[in-house]
This record gives sequence, structure tokens and C-alpha cells, in this order.
Amino acid sequence: MDFAITIIEQIQKPTLAFLIAGMMLAALGSKFEIPEPVYKFIVILLLLKIGMGGGIAIRSADFMSLIVPAIGAALLGITIVFLGSKTLAKMRGVAELDALATVGMFGAVSASTLAAGMTMLDDSGIAYEGYIGALYPFMDIAALVTAIVLAKLSVARQAASDVQINGDGTVLMRGPTQPASGQELDGTSEIVRGIMVDTFRSPAISALVAGLCLGILAEPNTVFKSFYEPLFRGLLSILMLIMGLEAWSRFAELRKVAHTYILYGVTAPIIHGLMGFGVGLIAHQLTGFSEGGVILLAVMAASSSDISGPPTMRAALPDANSSAYVGTSTGLGTPVAILRIPLFMALTDWVM
Amino acid sequence: MDFAITIIEQIQKPTLAFLIAGMMLAALGSKFEIPEPVYKFIVILLLLKIGMGGGIAIRSADFMSLIVPAIGAALLGITIVFLGSKTLAKMRGVAELDALATVGMFGAVSASTLAAGMTMLDDSGIAYEGYIGALYPFMDIAALVTAIVLAKLSVARQAASDVQINGDGTVLMRGPTQPASGQELDGTSEIVRGIMVDTFRSPAISALVAGLCLGILAEPNTVFKSFYEPLFRGLLSILMLIMGLEAWSRFAELRKVAHTYILYGVTAPIIHGLMGFGVGLIAHQLTGFSEGGVILLAVMAASSSDISGPPTMRAALPDANSSAYVGTSTGLGTPVAILRIPLFMALTDWVM
Amino acid sequence: MDFAITIIEQIQKPTLAFLIAGMMLAALGSKFEIPEPVYKFIVILLLLKIGMGGGIAIRSADFMSLIVPAIGAALLGITIVFLGSKTLAKMRGVAELDALATVGMFGAVSASTLAAGMTMLDDSGIAYEGYIGALYPFMDIAALVTAIVLAKLSVARQAASDVQINGDGTVLMRGPTQPASGQELDGTSEIVRGIMVDTFRSPAISALVAGLCLGILAEPNTVFKSFYEPLFRGLLSILMLIMGLEAWSRFAELRKVAHTYILYGVTAPIIHGLMGFGVGLIAHQLTGFSEGGVILLAVMAASSSDISGPPTMRAALPDANSSAYVGTSTGLGTPVAILRIPLFMALTDWVM
Repeated sequence: MDFAITIIEQIQKPTLAFLIAGMMLAALGSKFEIPEPVYKFIVILLLLKIGMGGGIAIRSADFMSLIVPAIGAALLGITIVFLGSKTLAKMRGVAELDALATVGMFGAVSASTLAAGMTMLDDSGIAYEGYIGALYPFMDIAALVTAIVLAKLSVARQAASDVQINGDGTVLMRGPTQPASGQELDGTSEIVRGIMVDTFRSPAISALVAGLCLGILAEPNTVFKSFYEPLFRGLLSILMLIMGLEAWSRFAELRKVAHTYILYGVTAPIIHGLMGFGVGLIAHQLTGFSEGGVILLAVMAASSSDISGPPTMRAALPDANSSAYVGTSTGLGTPVAILRIPLFMALTDWVM
Repeated sequence: MDFAITIIEQIQKPTLAFLIAGMMLAALGSKFEIPEPVYKFIVILLLLKIGMGGGIAIRSADFMSLIVPAIGAALLGITIVFLGSKTLAKMRGVAELDALATVGMFGAVSASTLAAGMTMLDDSGIAYEGYIGALYPFMDIAALVTAIVLAKLSVARQAASDVQINGDGTVLMRGPTQPASGQELDGTSEIVRGIMVDTFRSPAISALVAGLCLGILAEPNTVFKSFYEPLFRGLLSILMLIMGLEAWSRFAELRKVAHTYILYGVTAPIIHGLMGFGVGLIAHQLTGFSEGGVILLAVMAASSSDISGPPTMRAALPDANSSAYVGTSTGLGTPVAILRIPLFMALTDWVM
Repeated sequence: MDFAITIIEQIQKPTLAFLIAGMMLAALGSKFEIPEPVYKFIVILLLLKIGMGGGIAIRSADFMSLIVPAIGAALLGITIVFLGSKTLAKMRGVAELDALATVGMFGAVSASTLAAGMTMLDDSGIAYEGYIGALYPFMDIAALVTAIVLAKLSVARQAASDVQINGDGTVLMRGPTQPASGQELDGTSEIVRGIMVDTFRSPAISALVAGLCLGILAEPNTVFKSFYEPLFRGLLSILMLIMGLEAWSRFAELRKVAHTYILYGVTAPIIHGLMGFGVGLIAHQLTGFSEGGVILLAVMAASSSDISGPPTMRAALPDANSSAYVGTSTGLGTPVAILRIPLFMALTDWVM
């Protein structure tokens, strides 16, 4: 019951409501569309804002005390993505590209879920470190970049193996700088480097990182508060309309594997939350990381991106099926994660 | 005198001032232009906002008590358009397409005129139903859609009759699904259905209806207040600049029929207001609709669209002459309607 | 030291920080870009806002008392540009087009420097005329238009002289309405007229002047406050990103003449400030122009455009090197001008 109510509330919120509105428009054959140049600009503004917000959070935190937990947060994000690449992405019938985009979303962080967690702790009088908010960009960007690199690598491998299948004795390779079989490891690491460079030079990650640097090094607060922040939710609603329009046309592809995504969407937040809880617990033993901090690290790891993920994935992996990754993360991952916050709070009571 | 002052005040307001600025730029040969993709996006944002605003108004009203007056409001909007299609559109020298666009604007509602009416009633201590504000989208959308459908039907008929004139014995028809003469009624209703479907799938009406549904069914208030509402007047000012640039180049076409539009712009608000007053009076007798409600229904019927109309017509009927429909409605219809509010207030004193 | 701190503070402010971020992105080979239609729209919004702000300032001032100082301000702007066209633009190795764009920026006014000056006077209890704020668009637009006309004239002359070099007895001329040598003066004035007309019809100056007229003649305050003003700093930050991306690719061109621009950027504000001080002193003797007014006229003349200039120059003179004109004015001119405000205050104490 609670779950159903949380899902309905989530659906009525702008993010999902606009996504569904876009799907309805597509279903009814509307000619509604957002011009491409405007769409590109919207994505850039969103990502600059997300990066800048993260940067401002990092800047206002004490940098030294941040280093260790930040590395922990980034490793959590990367681990979640690798875990997903070995589970969801290997399921029968699941397209690897769609799975990696989904897994990237679950590695990334939902700022609103984190905010909900902070509110609950405040209400219960549980203290936490002031720099916790500054940890989220580390987990977020690490997970998104890892997922994008893995996805591009998978596409490159696909292209290479296609060539080998079509080959007839002579080895014909049209894939990107494809290695001979003896040098496979070297070749792969070269491809990975190429993909990493490509990813950081892509408009999406460039905008995210440029925003992050501006937030850390410059004083963009006035323009952030007067422009990027007020426009953010509105532009996100437009992006959701666009993604809804697209998602509809690719909905059918998912029919056969929908149950796999539902299973992942319902279980992954709990497993990821427990992983975050474990890392937090270790930090608690070693450095005295607070009880509230442990809960919030679990919440961050459990949450899946509802804001930074969609524009990043849509721009970096245009071929991934947005019905899969937006639907699973925003439609299932976020409500599940929000409802599991009390679980992590009970767990600290029990363990710590 | 009062009329002249109201017109000057109206001209200085952003809506008309930017329209005139656009016309001046065109007259002086400026190369100023707004890129097409941006223009399309502006129209979509405006229509989403208009729809959402209407939807939120409907949502916060009691739906059951709304049904009867909503049907009345929609019928009024439709009747005004049909009346205009038999009068203004039949005048010698008046282009039917321009006339129907104009008539649609006069059927639609000016939110600012309605607000002016509410303020006057408040000042005079006259009560009215709380859901009155929620009636306006019904009249507005009914009138706009009717006018667009009639205009597209007129274009289709034109195309069909052109074919018959050029025919030489054998019947050649390139119009959309043209019927044989014996099945004319069936054929027309099929064409009407096709045009209705086309109209609702057009980007403009799609955006309007999507906004309406979001307003009624979802909880878009936060994004509405933080994004759509603050941007609205500014984007409208840009649209007015664009329409002014266009209007100038098509001004000459109107010279011969300008007096017809002026006559319509000055008399139609009064006739439509009396129609609204009559419908309100009937509702008063049957259901105890309040005195203030009767006045506001008259004001709504008398008013002509200054906000929802221009972007809708420009997107749905790009070939209609915007100098005709924007000039007549915003330049004449709105000031006449505002100045006639006291007339309707006096009328209730006298009749009721 | 003070100078270094002011420069660092200036660099961290959004204007320069986004410019540098854009340059970094370009340096790192990012594929980040803002779509052209959106860029064009941003420039139009910025210039409409700048014009409208100036217009509103003029409107709220007493027009009659404004005429004489406005003419003085405009003449100062024009003189500064002509002075620069005879000095910086004639330096060895300096491209005339880049120099004229730079000189136009130094003739134009920095609203933020002016605001800093006003604050310092308020703090020191020195009175000044209320209409001073309304003087800045006169100096600003006069300087920008003069620089653009001179630059276009220089390009036209260049084209014409190219033709004469390539000619072989018969005179071949592909330049715009090129005069025979006997009628040179007439021909030049005709070319100047053509360029003036072209300049005022260009999208940039059209938008600026349309905004100015709307500010003076209409009542755009509501839309100005709700839309143009809040969006301004944000859109400017985007423009700076774009200009940074461009500036990087053209940075190398400047290496050989950078010292010339640095010399100009450091000395010009002081010389221009003294010119403004002189004009103010004459006005003080003749019409009793206040002490504070004299200081602020000097500050205006000393300041170089950080806001109106970049979008105007980028749109009107797309071939000018933005690293030269934005770098010199925003990077050097503005901090030098701000630091020289106390000098002008001391000067009045000493002279008046």
C-alpha cells in the first residue's frame, strides 16, 4: 500500500508526469517536438547546473576532510556499475547498451532522495558531517563516466566481433584501432583510453566537468542562484517530455525483458544501500565517521539518478533505450530507495 | 476620450508595444530575426503554460459543480466562432482564412480582461462563484479549435473547388479524400474528422492539451511557479516582436478591408458580451448562478484572446495574416471589452 | 598587490570565469558547443535588455536637463574611439579590425564600474545628479556604433585597395559602390552612409535600438523585471563560454602584439578618465554640473564595456578576434578603471 502511494506521488511529480505526458503525446500520434538545437542547449544548461551545484558544495566543504570519503564514494559508484555490468547486463535478452545505461543511473545519486534522507535524520535528531552533500558529485560522476565508458567499449567490441564473423580467412577490421589477437590486452587498454578521452571531450561530460570546475574555483554563486537554479526544474520538465516522446517509440522493444528490469529496479537499491552501509561502517571503525554519515552514504548508494542521469545518458549514449533506463531508475529505483531510508536508520540502531 | 486613453495605455503595455516594435524594425528594413527553432520552442513553452494554468484552475475547482457552466462556456466559444464565420468571413474582400483566425481570437478569452472584471466586482462587493476562473479554458480551447478546424476545412474546400474548375469532363480531385457529389455530407464529415484529428495532433494544440492534462492530473505547481509562469510574459514579448515583423510585410493586404475589421473589432465584443449575459441569465434562473457569475461570463464572452490566441493561431494557421487577427483582437477587441465591463455590471442591476 | 587581488577577484567573477572555462574546454579539445540558433537568440535577448535598461533610465530622467550632458557623453564616446583608431589601430602588427573592436569596447561603458563609482560617492557623501545613470547609453551606443562603422569602413577600403593592386590598367572594382579617384570624398561619404544604414539594420544594433525605444516610449517595466533582468547574467555567462571557446583558437594570432594590447589596456582608462574629467570640469564651469557628476563622467569614460560590448561586437564584427577585445577590456580595462576611481575623487578635491 505504502509502496503504491509513493509510486502515485512520484508519478504526479513533474519529473515522471512530464515523461508520461510525452509518452501519451507519442502514443496519440502528436507532431509535438522540441527542436534539436534547443534540446542540445537544454542539456548543456542542465549539466552545467548539476556540475556547478556539485562544485559549490565541494568548495564550501573542507577539502582535506573530504578526500577519503570522496574516494570511498567514487569507488562505490564504480563498483555498483561493475556489479550491474556482470548481472543485469548479462541477463538473457537484455541489450547490453540499455543495461549499462540503466546501471549507470543506479550508480549515480538522486539529490532529492539524499535531501529526503537528510530531512529524516534532522527530524530524528541524528547528527551527520556537514560535507556529506559534497560527496554526491564524486559518486555521481564516477558512476556515469564508468557506465558510459563500459557502454562505448561494448559497442566497440561488438563492432570488432561483427567484423570477425564476416571475415573469410583474411582479417578485416573496421572497428576503432582494433588490436591483433596477441596484443589484446594492450589494445583494449588503448581503446579504453581512447574512449575515456572521447567521453571527457563529449559535450555532456565536458559541460558537467566545466560546471564542477567553475563551482570549485570561481565564484559563480550569483549567476547560479539567479539563473541556473531557477531554470533547472523547468528545463528538466522539458527534457522529460522529449524523453517520453522517444521512450514510447522504443517501449515495445522492452516487452520481453521488462520483468528483468523490474527485478533489478526493486532489488538493486537495497543491495547498493547495504554496500554503502558497509563502506560507511568501515569508515566509522577507522576514522570515526558519524552514524548519520553512515546512513546517508547508504542512502546515496541506494538512490538512483533522477536528475543528472537522464540528460547525461541521452547525450552520451543516444542509442540506449530511454524507456529502459529512465523507466527503471525514476519509476522504480527512486521510490524503492526513498522507502528504504528507515531500513538503513534501523540498521544503524541495530549494528552500531 | 476614455477610449483613446485606454488604447494608448494598451499600446504601451508589453504585448502591443513589442508588436509595434517588431513592425517598426520591419518597416526600417532591419535584419533582426529570431531563429526558427527558438521561435518553435517559445510557442511550445507558451502553450504548455497556458494549458497548465487552465488545468490547475480546473483541478482546484470542484469538478462536479463545474460541468454545466463549463459546457455553457464551451458552447459560447463555439457559437461566437460560427457567428463570425457567417458574418465577418462572408464580407466582400475579406480573406476567409484571416477572418476565421480573427473570429477564433474573439471567441477565445483574455485572462487579463477577466482579471480586470474580477477586480471591479471585488471593489464593488459583488460576489461570484470561486470556480469562474476555471471556466475560461473551456471557452478558450473550444473557440480556438473550432476556428482552426473551420479554417482548415475552408482551405480544403478551396483546394477541392479549384480542382473542379480546372476539370474537363473527367473529375480530377487532388483535395484530401474528396467525396463524389452524391456522398457529399458523408465526405464532409470525414474531412472534418480528419481535420479534427490533425488539429489535435498539431504541435500547438498538442502542447495546449498536454499542459491542460498535466495541470488537471499531475502536481506541476512547483515547476509552474518557478519556470513557466516567470518566463511567460517575457517569451510572449519575444513572440510579439516576431509577429510584428511578419505583420508589417502583410499590412498592405488589409488596406482595402481594414474598415470591416475595425467594425468587427468594435461591435463584436458588445454582441458577444450580451450573448454571454443571456446564457448567464438562463443559468441564473435555472440553477441560481450568481449575479457576479453572470457578469463574468459576459466579460469572458466579450473579451478576445491576447495571450493564448497569437501563439496558437501562428502555429496552427501559419498562412493567416497576423496583422488582421492580432491587430483586431489585441488592438481593438481588448480595449473595447475592458471598457464595456461597467455596461454588464449596470445591466445586471437593471435586469436581475 | 592591490592590482593583483583585483585581477584575481575579477577572474573569479562569472564574466571572466566562464570566458576562461570556455578557453579551457577548447584547449582540452572538448566537443562542447552552443547551437548557432540559440547563440543568436541569446545575443538578441542580451541586447534587447541592455537597450531597454538604458531606455528606462532615460525615461525616468528629466529629458530636458539630460540633453546637454547626453551630447557631451556621446561626443566623449566617439572621441575615445577616434583617438584609439589613430593610436592602437596604427601600431605595427596590430590588425586594424581587432584594434577598432577593442577601442569600441573602451569607448563603451561598464555599468558595474559606474555602479562601483556611485557606491563610493554615496559612501563619501558626495552628491551627484540623479540623471547620471541615464547618460551611459549615450556614451555606450555612440562608441559602439562609431567603432563598428570605422571597422566596416576599414574592411571596405581594404577590399577596394586589393582591387587596385590586382588591376592591370583597366580599373576593376568589386568593393561596395567604389568611387572614381576624382570623386573620392563624395564616394567615401556615400560608403559611410551605406555602412551606417547597414549597421543600424544589423540584428545587433537593431535589437539595441529597439530595446532603447521600448524603454523610452513604452511601459516594459513588468516584463523587464520579470524576464529580461533575471535572465541577463545567466545568458551572459553562456555567451562568455562561447566567446572563450572561440578566443582560444585565435589566441596565437595575438602573441606578437600582446604587449601593445597590454599597454593600451593599462594606459587608456587613465587617459580616457582624464578626458571625461576635463569635459565634466567645463560643464561644471558653464552649467554648475556637480562635483559628483564630474567624477562619474570621468569614471564612465575610463570604464570599458564588460556587458554591452561583447555581444554587440561578436554579432556586428564576427571576424574580429575576441581574444583581443574581450581580453583587453574585461581582463585589463575594467580592473584598471575600478582602481582609478579614487584618483578621480582625489582630483576633484585638488582642482575644484
